[in-house]
Amino acid sequence: MNAKAKANHCKIVDCTIRDGGLVNNWDFSVEFVQHLYNSLNEAGVDYMEIGYKNSPKLLKGAESAGPWRFLDDEFLRTVIPQKLNTKLSALVDIGRVDENDILPREESLLDLIRVACYIQDVDKALQLVSLFHERGYETTLNIMALSNVMEHQLLEAFELINESVVDVVYIVDSYGSLDPNDFSLLVDKFKKHLPNKRLGVHTHNNLQLAFANTLISAEKGVELLDASVYGMGRAAGNCHTELLVAHLKNTKYNVRPVLDMIDKYMIPLRQKEEWGYIMPYMITGMLDEHPRSAMALRNTADKDKSLEFYDKLTTPELLHGN
Amino acid sequence: MNAKAKANHCKIVDCTIRDGGLVNNWDFSVEFVQHLYNSLNEAGVDYMEIGYKNSPKLLKGAESAGPWRFLDDEFLRTVIPQKLNTKLSALVDIGRVDENDILPREESLLDLIRVACYIQDVDKALQLVSLFHERGYETTLNIMALSNVMEHQLLEAFELINESVVDVVYIVDSYGSLDPNDFSLLVDKFKKHLPNKRLGVHTHNNLQLAFANTLISAEKGVELLDASVYGMGRAAGNCHTELLVAHLKNTKYNVRPVLDMIDKYMIPLRQKEEWGYIMPYMITGMLDEHPRSAMALRNTADKDKSLEFYDKLTTPELLHGN
Repeated sequence: MNAKAKANHCKIVDCTIRDGGLVNNWDFSVEFVQHLYNSLNEAGVDYMEIGYKNSPKLLKGAESAGPWRFLDDEFLRTVIPQKLNTKLSALVDIGRVDENDILPREESLLDLIRVACYIQDVDKALQLVSLFHERGYETTLNIMALSNVMEHQLLEAFELINESVVDVVYIVDSYGSLDPNDFSLLVDKFKKHLPNKRLGVHTHNNLQLAFANTLISAEKGVELLDASVYGMGRAAGNCHTELLVAHLKNTKYNVRPVLDMIDKYMIPLRQKEEWGYIMPYMITGMLDEHPRSAMALRNTADKDKSLEFYDKLTTPELLHGN
Repeated sequence: MNAKAKANHCKIVDCTIRDGGLVNNWDFSVEFVQHLYNSLNEAGVDYMEIGYKNSPKLLKGAESAGPWRFLDDEFLRTVIPQKLNTKLSALVDIGRVDENDILPREESLLDLIRVACYIQDVDKALQLVSLFHERGYETTLNIMALSNVMEHQLLEAFELINESVVDVVYIVDSYGSLDPNDFSLLVDKFKKHLPNKRLGVHTHNNLQLAFANTLISAEKGVELLDASVYGMGRAAGNCHTELLVAHLKNTKYNVRPVLDMIDKYMIPLRQKEEWGYIMPYMITGMLDEHPRSAMALRNTADKDKSLEFYDKLTTPELLHGN
């Protein structure tokens, strides 16, 4: 029994700091991040996304955020004085990154720069990708909110991507609304239209399908698998790193250091901060919507009134008064 | 997008009271059970498993348990004075049921009696099934711990089952250790060897795969899908009823009454009682073991020392001192 996925072609990209930072405004101590880096390295995890590399000049309300939101190369050297096997990654958003902040790779600790965008900005994203590629980085293009993209938009994007230098193209289930069949069809489509690109997936756990969606993608040949330790990520969170590390067990991965990280840091953190399968996030996932309305609800006294919340979202005149 | 499973052949069997009772020693109020019954009925859920129908005479330590552990037909009539569309089910265990307790169906509120057993007791279970069938009930045979069953045992069981009157045969992932590929292979095997039987699945959520495993089974033709509201069930719990009701959305199902039940009863209950994705349960699932060691751990001060727990389970001499 237990026909474990033999996905030796896969690489795990741990997003705990970057996507988890959306939960706690990137308020991770240096000690936390160092322990995570060492744990992931011992666990055999391939990449650690250590934050965003956007520019504070291009974002409002940035002053209060922790340093992982606007990674600084000098600061990063004090955090990770010795690079180990786990590579380092940073995410940038279209319109929020100052390209002058990105050093040539040989002067930076970063190995991979990932560019996130919505479908209408794929052209701009690919310009950035091209720049980072020239500066020596591995690159990915992460197309967000794929569940809300129309077919002709996607086909146009594929043409641009095929002409570009990008290494890896990501399927991102921003709203956590997709199931394994959806992922299976999307991976087939991306493989067909992007025969020379490698693929990645980034999942959310609104419907408790993040792990299953990642597994089916891995089986179909997707290489880069995003995950977070104990699932820490915006709203319902992500695929759990410990599940991937444990399940892809015919590989180099070792779950023990991830369990240690969970015991020492994630369980106490989860007492203070909230993410995971929580009813309003299940509802936005099921309705294929951004979780922002659910995140707002969770900050009110009505946070557990999920039926009322569902009725508001499914009866738009209740929301908009018309 | 969102190629929802069009599983109109499926029936949901809600196990909140029966499997959830393993969490709180069946300490559900009559009001709770009545609200659940009405909610499931409004939601279109097909069956509600309202408890066990074992005999207190045949079980030790039975005095403290709530009434849902030893269903009494007279008591049941006071709880459900008016049967609605949702049928009622009870589970019995080999060696723990007194067959004299089972009235003819026309004198009982119960519609379905399910017999749970391990593989070596399939013959005894089928004798009970035969008796309940004669008394007019729908019947299922639930073979537990399938992940630990050897092929020749299973093939022998299939022969007995094919000669029996049982209506539905269940694939039960008692340890929550199976993934969608495992379920896919098991369903294929059961379909091949039991061509004239209907099938059911009962999943556990140790690896966050209960919902995905249920979906793949439904797609492959499995009819009876076990679930619990908000996942309430032993240890890591079950597939969530609300997810099934919401996702199988091209059917008669309506998620609103289930959300209401969650808001009013399950969220407050979850503050007092524990079930779901909790690290020691993830570990027993990943190791394909019964969760009893993890349940014991959760009652100690070391409940969050998952690495230590993992090391004990994977280094047997640490457990047994030899």
